[in-house]
Amino acid sequence: MLRSKLLSLLPRAADATRCMSSAATKLTTVEVDSKSGIATLTMNRPPVNGLNLELLRDINASIDEIESNKSRGLILTSSNPTIFSAGLDIMEMYKPDQERLRAFWTALQDCWLALYGSSVPTAAAINGHSPAGGCLLATSCEYRVMLPNFSIGLNETKLGIVAPLWFMASFLSVLPRREAERALNQGRMFSTAEALEAGLIDEIASSKEEALAKCAAFIGTFAKVNPMARALTKQQFRGADLRQLENERAQDLEKFLFFVNQPAVQKGLGIYLDGLKKKAKN
Amino acid sequence: MLRSKLLSLLPRAADATRCMSSAATKLTTVEVDSKSGIATLTMNRPPVNGLNLELLRDINASIDEIESNKSRGLILTSSNPTIFSAGLDIMEMYKPDQERLRAFWTALQDCWLALYGSSVPTAAAINGHSPAGGCLLATSCEYRVMLPNFSIGLNETKLGIVAPLWFMASFLSVLPRREAERALNQGRMFSTAEALEAGLIDEIASSKEEALAKCAAFIGTFAKVNPMARALTKQQFRGADLRQLENERAQDLEKFLFFVNQPAVQKGLGIYLDGLKKKAKN
Amino acid sequence: MLRSKLLSLLPRAADATRCMSSAATKLTTVEVDSKSGIATLTMNRPPVNGLNLELLRDINASIDEIESNKSRGLILTSSNPTIFSAGLDIMEMYKPDQERLRAFWTALQDCWLALYGSSVPTAAAINGHSPAGGCLLATSCEYRVMLPNFSIGLNETKLGIVAPLWFMASFLSVLPRREAERALNQGRMFSTAEALEAGLIDEIASSKEEALAKCAAFIGTFAKVNPMARALTKQQFRGADLRQLENERAQDLEKFLFFVNQPAVQKGLGIYLDGLKKKAKN
Repeated sequence: MLRSKLLSLLPRAADATRCMSSAATKLTTVEVDSKSGIATLTMNRPPVNGLNLELLRDINASIDEIESNKSRGLILTSSNPTIFSAGLDIMEMYKPDQERLRAFWTALQDCWLALYGSSVPTAAAINGHSPAGGCLLATSCEYRVMLPNFSIGLNETKLGIVAPLWFMASFLSVLPRREAERALNQGRMFSTAEALEAGLIDEIASSKEEALAKCAAFIGTFAKVNPMARALTKQQFRGADLRQLENERAQDLEKFLFFVNQPAVQKGLGIYLDGLKKKAKN
Repeated sequence: MLRSKLLSLLPRAADATRCMSSAATKLTTVEVDSKSGIATLTMNRPPVNGLNLELLRDINASIDEIESNKSRGLILTSSNPTIFSAGLDIMEMYKPDQERLRAFWTALQDCWLALYGSSVPTAAAINGHSPAGGCLLATSCEYRVMLPNFSIGLNETKLGIVAPLWFMASFLSVLPRREAERALNQGRMFSTAEALEAGLIDEIASSKEEALAKCAAFIGTFAKVNPMARALTKQQFRGADLRQLENERAQDLEKFLFFVNQPAVQKGLGIYLDGLKKKAKN
Repeated sequence: MLRSKLLSLLPRAADATRCMSSAATKLTTVEVDSKSGIATLTMNRPPVNGLNLELLRDINASIDEIESNKSRGLILTSSNPTIFSAGLDIMEMYKPDQERLRAFWTALQDCWLALYGSSVPTAAAINGHSPAGGCLLATSCEYRVMLPNFSIGLNETKLGIVAPLWFMASFLSVLPRREAERALNQGRMFSTAEALEAGLIDEIASSKEEALAKCAAFIGTFAKVNPMARALTKQQFRGADLRQLENERAQDLEKFLFFVNQPAVQKGLGIYLDGLKKKAKN
């Protein structure tokens, strides 16, 4: 496995192609700071960075781009001033087209494998609310800086759905087991202050600029570290989690499809969407 | 697996039968609060709630009853004012009848699988001392409230026995790894105050009533959570631990039988029982 | 497995032989306190207790001796007043003889399996700096007491190398997952004070004598614990980690050989050694 990991650190022709195509995408932007060499990946899908198929594919292309352009690190953030990401776009799951539903979940699996397993240092500048899939993205990074008075958590049980094992893996890479289980079962949303106390985030920043700077400072702690040794160490540390999904991708997809297509789940999603619509009208 | 879990959430005819038989048992009682829908499972085997074959079977029947009667949660407590449970009844292990010894350990395995894997929220109102098997029951719940000036811990090594892997799993679901290993090796009993500091319990209450109320408040945190999503989330989170025993039940039983039947272990238990008898006389 | 573990607690003729040969070694000493029954294993390879093939073999022989001479515990320390152990001797890896390189890594595997899986209580009196392999030895013990103003950590990434999975296992037996991963990726060295706060060590002592006394006090907490039950409990708790290496020793060796023989790694080690030589001259 070490051999393949070493090879995976080499720039790849196929990736370079994907980078170029990623340049044409609209739902994410990648900016590389010429001084620090750190890439900022910004999610930009109004109104709430709902993770639909297209946004996930653009995030994946942007991660590929950053992995292959020799960036010194990756900071994930949002163009929205109050929402980091609202999580999975429920419209992908409600009365779904089955082929698109498969592509959607596969893109989410790809996204987690790419971000949680990224060879470059990663940090999240959480500049807004970050429920469910938003929290998944944040906890798949190695460091989290959050703005005050927002909320973060895996609140799937409150929506009547079940976070899969790899969501739990990211959560458990950050929180102690007892706290992680309880929060998952409760579908608990943490305030910024609670998240800091629990260890779900690492720092609080008073502005997006400060959050980005703190993320860059974290990535700067690797300045004197050998990048290849660092990447292999991280991939080995996260290896068991990553292999669990890699080895069970097909079953994980089938589980998701079975679950989403349950009439009770469809009904629950419908009620939830109606609630959102009413909220939007008032 | 998700399919079978979904099915397991449906009421089962077989279980309903077991409920009725459980209604006839004497060593546990189940009371469901008509307002909250929370069931209180009280262990009532004088003098110390020693976990013998009959008590374990009654606990298992009571858990089955609670799982199938649509209770909103399960609170485990004791009718004894100073002892939650003294743990495994040593009389089951000293000079044992081999058939009964097998049934005893199998009932304990069943009990852990049922309680640790319970689909309803669980909490322990620990209203007295809780060594060894008593601590196993408490740490298999999701929340623990304890009265002051009692003690709790897995003190098996002090008795010359070895807590099996699934005892360790429950312990590790609550304590950090370093603390868990040290306490296990030392056979450490924590005072109520020490248990709170270590995270082995979640709250202290000044009376049994207050402990029951705090347990009910914890179960109340799931009021707005989808019960099926919650149950699946918990079972998935605890799945690796549960499968470990499910897949190795036979070997785990043989290990136990081999160990208990060692002459040195029998001798140690004899000395321990003599000590208890002398204590009782004074 | 329990059977073989029980057998392994019996004194072994083969071990007794190895003890005698260990008595002839020069790079470690073993002193058993006649009052407490605790053995102190002192590493004594000037100038920095670099772990080369001979020191590792002597440590292994000393552990074997302590396991078989009925010592009540093992305290690992150093004869050097400022360095516990500088870790793996880089001269074993730079322009290596391939046969010796294999023997070296195999001896390190043996050392970890013997120390992390030791049946007697273990503690480290860390009386000096303890980077990389030095930190591995310290975190493979059950308790750590350290003198002020020294440093400890797994700083492999700073040297361009990757700590294998079993180094990570020892680290994770002590630190929470989030802290462990970050420190590993950063190659972070903790000061004595930082190590205490993180939980990487358990106590600070102002002198080597005090450190040895505190280690002995920790081992004393097992005075009323059944030694066989304790040994089986520890081996079961650490069993998954130990089996992981036992089952993959050959692959782990091949990984190491492949990695060390990379031209980039050889070049990095050369640069590092040149730096050390220049430092030594000034």
